[in-house]
Amino acid sequence: MSVLVVGSIALDTVKTPFEEHADLLGGSASYAAIGASFFSPVNLVGVVGTDFPAQHVEFFRSRQIDLAGLQTAEGKTFRWSGEYMLDMNVRETRSVELNVFEHFTPALPDGYRETPCVLLANIGPNLQNHVLDQMTRPKFIVADTMDLWINIARPDLLRLLPRVDLLILNDSEARLLTQQTSLIKAGAAIRALGPKYVVIKKGEHGALLFGQDQFFSCGAYPLEDIHDPTGAGDTFAGGLAGWLGAQDGPVTFDLLRHAVVFGSVLASYNVEAFSLERMRTLTMQDVDTRYADFRLMQQFELID
Amino acid sequence: MSVLVVGSIALDTVKTPFEEHADLLGGSASYAAIGASFFSPVNLVGVVGTDFPAQHVEFFRSRQIDLAGLQTAEGKTFRWSGEYMLDMNVRETRSVELNVFEHFTPALPDGYRETPCVLLANIGPNLQNHVLDQMTRPKFIVADTMDLWINIARPDLLRLLPRVDLLILNDSEARLLTQQTSLIKAGAAIRALGPKYVVIKKGEHGALLFGQDQFFSCGAYPLEDIHDPTGAGDTFAGGLAGWLGAQDGPVTFDLLRHAVVFGSVLASYNVEAFSLERMRTLTMQDVDTRYADFRLMQQFELID
Repeated sequence: MSVLVVGSIALDTVKTPFEEHADLLGGSASYAAIGASFFSPVNLVGVVGTDFPAQHVEFFRSRQIDLAGLQTAEGKTFRWSGEYMLDMNVRETRSVELNVFEHFTPALPDGYRETPCVLLANIGPNLQNHVLDQMTRPKFIVADTMDLWINIARPDLLRLLPRVDLLILNDSEARLLTQQTSLIKAGAAIRALGPKYVVIKKGEHGALLFGQDQFFSCGAYPLEDIHDPTGAGDTFAGGLAGWLGAQDGPVTFDLLRHAVVFGSVLASYNVEAFSLERMRTLTMQDVDTRYADFRLMQQFELID
Repeated sequence: MSVLVVGSIALDTVKTPFEEHADLLGGSASYAAIGASFFSPVNLVGVVGTDFPAQHVEFFRSRQIDLAGLQTAEGKTFRWSGEYMLDMNVRETRSVELNVFEHFTPALPDGYRETPCVLLANIGPNLQNHVLDQMTRPKFIVADTMDLWINIARPDLLRLLPRVDLLILNDSEARLLTQQTSLIKAGAAIRALGPKYVVIKKGEHGALLFGQDQFFSCGAYPLEDIHDPTGAGDTFAGGLAGWLGAQDGPVTFDLLRHAVVFGSVLASYNVEAFSLERMRTLTMQDVDTRYADFRLMQQFELID
């Protein structure tokens, strides 16, 4: 089953206390699409400028990602620059140049309108709504968002929420959206806004999945060294949606538990190197190995 | 198998944004002993003053806790008073009166020296060492500690660590003890100081268990309303040690996974009411019910 991924495609400059790299492949759709591609065929919708390196397009192709929805617009690609502090949970955005992304309107090629699984990676909720307007009865819709949209585009976001099956956001964003301190209350409050399921990402503390009277807590993989946290959340969403896309039948809470684990597996690998470098060499055997590690880390009744 | 519990016994005054209660049964040994008593026979070592209400002694007795090690000293019982903020993770100590606890020296009745499982609940590490000096080859030793001892009694604590099998402490204490920001690195660093196993408690984010090349992440039970967090960590330690005490054979990492879950179950119930009130009505059926909830919350490969 294919997954439609829409979001930003960027060229990033990332500084950590130890390294700095420029012109890296980035953007929510890049991470999400590559993450999803480990499990499902992916249709990518996004925009790049005429300066976008051919090698990045080749990387998408090498992952069997369909690029009929990738627009190339006159001008420069979206650029983002950020710096991580010694505590890698703390990030400062140094600069943002929207460039061709400023006037991006996601237009779905005809062949994409019936993609059964949709991942609305982090872009403005008006654009996320616009994508759904073009879809024909998708089976499952996942949306990611961020604090920026909660602050400046709340009405658009509130219009989106009843249209999606699963909303993914991080802990501070969940608190910002609901004004609840308790993440348990925040999860329930977000479900009341529309999504059937909610995932709250907690960084080094893992992720929480909420359904109706159902709850799943996934720990974070115990990495000692994180080289670049950029895109961890997008890769998580991509891995989650990609794995769901590969399953038959209706999406159940039990399937979602596994999807959260596979999203966590992909994200845990991605932060081991800058940009999407780790994804270039990642194998399905690596994925299976770390899935087994999550079992040992998380299950207390082990199935042999 | 019996569990020896040594620690403080106190009369607490606890204020939350919603309620205030005085003269509550408190202290690390009270919570730990009651928690352990759900799974194992308990030998309690501690001191109270002549003002200690008989009803609290009766409560210990009703839980089949052996009180041969409970000293009554001339004077007042240890008193602690604390206040929780709206974010219940934040607590301020309002006053501490050591009273009879100031000159407490834990003396083990002869019958206690061969108790196979020992829980050194939170008291000064000099006293924890003194208890171990009196023991005859216990099978498994668990110790709890706090920031105060890391700050003012580090040499005593460092002398204790190689003598214990499992150290329990919270995230900020683990960072304080090791000067590591990453809890993964902190867990490994504490093991290097002596304990074979380490549990780092993370409050609303659950707990992490570290062994040699082994790791277990336990989520926190999703409580919407917490009435009194006092003693949650002590109850966790008591439930953990009590459950371990009830198992045959050597203590393995797999047993410890379960022990962490049972400790979490007990602690999650205890915070539902002030002091130890919830423990008065708690049944083994309640424990089993919440253990099943932890399975649903935490396992992604479920055993039917």
